[in-house]
Amino acid sequence: MSPIKLAIVGVGKIVRDQHLPAIAGNGNFELIATASRHGTVDGVPAYSSIEAMLEAVPAIDAVSLCMPPQYRYDAARKALDAGKHVFLEKPPGATLSEVQDLIRLADSKGLSLFASWHSRYAPAVEATRAFLAGAAIRSVEIIWKEDVRHWHPNQEWIWQAGGLGVFDPGINALSIMTHILPNPVFLTGAELTFPENRDAPIAASLAFRDQAGLAVNAEFDWRQTGKQTWDIRAETDKGLMVLESGGSKLTIDGREQLNAADDEYPSLYRRFAEIISAGRSDTDLAPLTHVADAFMLGKRRVTEAFHD
Amino acid sequence: MSPIKLAIVGVGKIVRDQHLPAIAGNGNFELIATASRHGTVDGVPAYSSIEAMLEAVPAIDAVSLCMPPQYRYDAARKALDAGKHVFLEKPPGATLSEVQDLIRLADSKGLSLFASWHSRYAPAVEATRAFLAGAAIRSVEIIWKEDVRHWHPNQEWIWQAGGLGVFDPGINALSIMTHILPNPVFLTGAELTFPENRDAPIAASLAFRDQAGLAVNAEFDWRQTGKQTWDIRAETDKGLMVLESGGSKLTIDGREQLNAADDEYPSLYRRFAEIISAGRSDTDLAPLTHVADAFMLGKRRVTEAFHD
Repeated sequence: MSPIKLAIVGVGKIVRDQHLPAIAGNGNFELIATASRHGTVDGVPAYSSIEAMLEAVPAIDAVSLCMPPQYRYDAARKALDAGKHVFLEKPPGATLSEVQDLIRLADSKGLSLFASWHSRYAPAVEATRAFLAGAAIRSVEIIWKEDVRHWHPNQEWIWQAGGLGVFDPGINALSIMTHILPNPVFLTGAELTFPENRDAPIAASLAFRDQAGLAVNAEFDWRQTGKQTWDIRAETDKGLMVLESGGSKLTIDGREQLNAADDEYPSLYRRFAEIISAGRSDTDLAPLTHVADAFMLGKRRVTEAFHD
Repeated sequence: MSPIKLAIVGVGKIVRDQHLPAIAGNGNFELIATASRHGTVDGVPAYSSIEAMLEAVPAIDAVSLCMPPQYRYDAARKALDAGKHVFLEKPPGATLSEVQDLIRLADSKGLSLFASWHSRYAPAVEATRAFLAGAAIRSVEIIWKEDVRHWHPNQEWIWQAGGLGVFDPGINALSIMTHILPNPVFLTGAELTFPENRDAPIAASLAFRDQAGLAVNAEFDWRQTGKQTWDIRAETDKGLMVLESGGSKLTIDGREQLNAADDEYPSLYRRFAEIISAGRSDTDLAPLTHVADAFMLGKRRVTEAFHD
């Protein structure tokens, strides 16, 4: 099969760091255009808007949408209306309802829509899921603490209403959680901490449980300097499971089971090619649903102002 | 068919005002038990918890759950686990995820779960839906302004995180909106106003649109004294449509089309009997999804303290 002719919209840090290398390494895709207000990719025709790009390059088969979530719906709709398959960076949109609208539209047009969750493709996630399926889980603790100044320097959009704040990394943890646990969970309590000068939270404490009463607690914090922590720990009848480093490393009672190099975005593009080939979509909204639930149910606390 | 043996959990104002008269007027139901911390119904065996009631009265076929939404999931799960059909007062739960869990459970057990939206059964709603289906809609405005001191005096739970604040009445407007408009809408912006001493909003401004660009604006406010307003107005090519008084009255260009007495809860119980008889559930989560989206996307403003 000839390569899928791909375009990228929103050329920023995540595109340069992750999408471009993954696409370059995947023979199923050929990057033929980009649209972005500022960013360009060497050697690839660049347009300043998705409308201009779709009009100028009808050969595009699929688009990857990498702009901030607040602006993703309109671009996705234009791409789907033009008959293109769509890859949505995470989170797939600013609201659940708008993504549900895209799902209906893609379905009605027979196009593939991919609500991507890159952390689910971290190397030790599948082994963790398999381990938990065979264990009795007593409790789960998620700790996702990083330094926002390092990972999101001067990204104003992430602090705006709808930018999700600390849930931008936190939703990665939730995308793993909803994939590895044997039963669905739901939120029973939450506290969200907002800097007094920002419209998005800098920290969150979440309490989930499942139908059987299993407690899952999560702590997200963007004020972590020094060692960065992206861990999920589970007490089980088969020992203490720790999925470390955002899903890269799995240990049971301190014994390393798996520790592999990051392959998330290459896996995402393999998956995107797979669903296009199969004529299907892949749009699990569970991680974003938990975030919306946390904003709806959560208590708000105000803390000192945050400045980059 | 012999009547459905019904129990009510959470005997408060809405039960006395609405559920009891509706049940008394419907030959398909027989109220045989209640469970509540404080409230009782004359002549009906009363229990202090749903567990005690389910154990003492195995003949119960169905339960109506009318406690605050923060406490509804556990009761619903116990009722479904005991093989009972379940009627959920609105909103159906404190989170989307927990209601999705109940939907799966009811489905797996072949029981009927009813996420009720009483305002959808207001007398002029169906006529409004039919009118809008045949009109070109230019804009929609929702105004839902009432006096919380009158309608929710000293209801502490409604001001707690998860109590939804002004979205408790506002979700009624959203339940009508999602029923009468020809296309699904999604939120593009919101502002939520919280009293400085409360964890739930006292006012909200919401901007929605649909795929075709139709703008739908909603204003919810709990500080309205004097005339109370629960109106949905639409500018159309066939004139100005006004659905007034929470769905009771429909006018087009000022000409009254329909103005009927409230029949919402009797209609809800007719619907509940119908889905039990058909072996189906009725669980549209669109109104609660919009509320969760508003909390996630909305900007927060703090205003003066509210005291009952």
